[in-house]
Amino acid sequence: MKDRPTEKDFIRVFSRVFQLKNKPLLFGSEFDDCAVLKLASLSQNLLAESLTFSTDTVRESTDFPKGMTLWQKGWMSAAVNLSDLAAMGSKPVAFLFSAGLPRSFTLEDAEEFARGIQECVSFFGAEVIGGDTEYNEELSITGTVIGILENKNVIYRKNAKPGDFLCVTGHTGSAGVALSVLLNRIPESASDAFLKNLTEPFPRIYEGMMLAKSGAVNSMIDTSDGLASSVYELSALSGVFFEIDEQKLPLEPEALEIVSTRLKRKTEMNELNEDQTAQEARLILIHESLYTGGDYELLFTIPPEKLSVIEEVFRKINENAAAQLKTYSSAGKSGRYPCKFTVIGKAIAEKENVNIRQTTYEEQRLPLLKRGYNSFTKDI
Amino acid sequence: MKDRPTEKDFIRVFSRVFQLKNKPLLFGSEFDDCAVLKLASLSQNLLAESLTFSTDTVRESTDFPKGMTLWQKGWMSAAVNLSDLAAMGSKPVAFLFSAGLPRSFTLEDAEEFARGIQECVSFFGAEVIGGDTEYNEELSITGTVIGILENKNVIYRKNAKPGDFLCVTGHTGSAGVALSVLLNRIPESASDAFLKNLTEPFPRIYEGMMLAKSGAVNSMIDTSDGLASSVYELSALSGVFFEIDEQKLPLEPEALEIVSTRLKRKTEMNELNEDQTAQEARLILIHESLYTGGDYELLFTIPPEKLSVIEEVFRKINENAAAQLKTYSSAGKSGRYPCKFTVIGKAIAEKENVNIRQTTYEEQRLPLLKRGYNSFTKDI
Repeated sequence: MKDRPTEKDFIRVFSRVFQLKNKPLLFGSEFDDCAVLKLASLSQNLLAESLTFSTDTVRESTDFPKGMTLWQKGWMSAAVNLSDLAAMGSKPVAFLFSAGLPRSFTLEDAEEFARGIQECVSFFGAEVIGGDTEYNEELSITGTVIGILENKNVIYRKNAKPGDFLCVTGHTGSAGVALSVLLNRIPESASDAFLKNLTEPFPRIYEGMMLAKSGAVNSMIDTSDGLASSVYELSALSGVFFEIDEQKLPLEPEALEIVSTRLKRKTEMNELNEDQTAQEARLILIHESLYTGGDYELLFTIPPEKLSVIEEVFRKINENAAAQLKTYSSAGKSGRYPCKFTVIGKAIAEKENVNIRQTTYEEQRLPLLKRGYNSFTKDI
Repeated sequence: MKDRPTEKDFIRVFSRVFQLKNKPLLFGSEFDDCAVLKLASLSQNLLAESLTFSTDTVRESTDFPKGMTLWQKGWMSAAVNLSDLAAMGSKPVAFLFSAGLPRSFTLEDAEEFARGIQECVSFFGAEVIGGDTEYNEELSITGTVIGILENKNVIYRKNAKPGDFLCVTGHTGSAGVALSVLLNRIPESASDAFLKNLTEPFPRIYEGMMLAKSGAVNSMIDTSDGLASSVYELSALSGVFFEIDEQKLPLEPEALEIVSTRLKRKTEMNELNEDQTAQEARLILIHESLYTGGDYELLFTIPPEKLSVIEEVFRKINENAAAQLKTYSSAGKSGRYPCKFTVIGKAIAEKENVNIRQTTYEEQRLPLLKRGYNSFTKDI
């Protein structure tokens, strides 16, 4: 049987038809998170400030794990779109959506769902400016987010340079662990706050804006489709390769604890001692980090000499986080700050592969699998 | 059994949650076709030029009658969004979409569908700047269109004044007749060009821009949900009422012919003579005009003293139509120009109803039914 076309296959067709490349006025979103509209192109009277646009759909069957509240589904619908702006260092301005509501939806349901959207959009400084609804077999929502770029340096995916440090914000793998907790229906093993890593994605808007402002970042992308997938995107578009050190991945302590607890419960693992369990848990969490989507952190590259600039950027981010978090905490949220960044690898020119350096059992370099979340290859 | 909430019920909830009203910077799209973003609000360095945004979803089961080609489905997906810009007198700049493709879709299918989008968007002077796709149970596409307003006079739905003439562009009822032809599977009774009234909606972008530029229009909306529904929108938001003269509705000769032919075929109508058949056909077509969606004409109100200004506007529109139509004709299209406008009624203050003046059998004024296309009340 012939393989089904992948999302990328379709996008390639679309890109050709829409001739997204090399448009003088508009930067297409074929290879970046957002389309960019240069205001200067609209009128000679405008300054060279840009607008950014991005559109994304989330649906009950493929994007909302069982157990999510309607408020969370609303929050997530906005957050996944905002994260695309974050990856361009853009400031959100406005959000529009078109929602398909299941026939069982009540007006109270609509209100809770809308409040989730509203709280996410307004927390990140934007406004909902329009919407459209109709009935659908399942809850689905397409959001479009509009942002502005306050400076001229647009951060694309394509400008990673050999020698760049590869960095990631926050923790990796937590959303993947939270998903496996929800799918296995053992939520009691994780705290509410931890599950929100998956159910209330936190777009790194503020971090993206501060990184863009620093002028120190060569390339950036979010990790929503999984770290491996995002690294391959940077690699393909920048023409560089990467070497990742698995020991550097910023794993969250509670994630390790949840995985360890689950390992201990399994009969066949009972003979593992404490250290071995911890080691196995790390390996599982590294796997979640690389190949499961949902983390919505920023993955970016910087020239090594800019490391101290970025350290200063994150010092400022965390200094200001208290004010940032005021609204968000009232929405029952926590655990996103302080936000660190971690150098997890580097860009290289000489190899024709993206490698991962494994050291858990014996040191070896293996090709990173080109895998990640792709709703196209997942059977519903 | 309790009635299902209508689209308007849901929108009311959303509007409350998103507090769309009275925002200083943004004009929400609660009551208008587009959200408007005042660029002046983004930066003091920008002129008071506005961007407009609108988003809309179309789906196989509710929006694409059987028999439509994939190219037409693509064209329609863009056209329904562009029509919202037309109703604000806005010039299209950019189009983004998020498409759900059925699993049976081939890359050739995607290409044909994309070409339909591309030809529509580029015909009306805009560019596709981004897209997102995934698999879905049925073909569905949410488009977001971005436009600019070249002058400061935004035409809303809310400014119709008592005494205003109510005008409509083009013909009314043709899409409804085309739909009934397709549903009854007797396409041989209609020309290909006629069926395009339904399957290749032609947003009145150029007409909307020229009307906005004239400064003579008080209120405007498109007729995509049916004339009656659009008149009620203008009425509710402007606080005026309307009287429509059914004899003035601009019916298309081929539409009358199709309906007459169908009437003659029906056994029970055989006793009608030629005149009676024509009269019955007119009544059916008037009904289609008022209560069936899909026409995508512009419905607008003007102060009576501006009639000659509008006549001059349409003289110019048709003078320039040859150039406008060059591209479009090559896409196999026709019948949209010359574009006339027709005064079909007037806005009144004194009555508490929207009336239709009927004169076919005996003269009478009846309340216009508050009915139209609403995907919420239609069972799939």
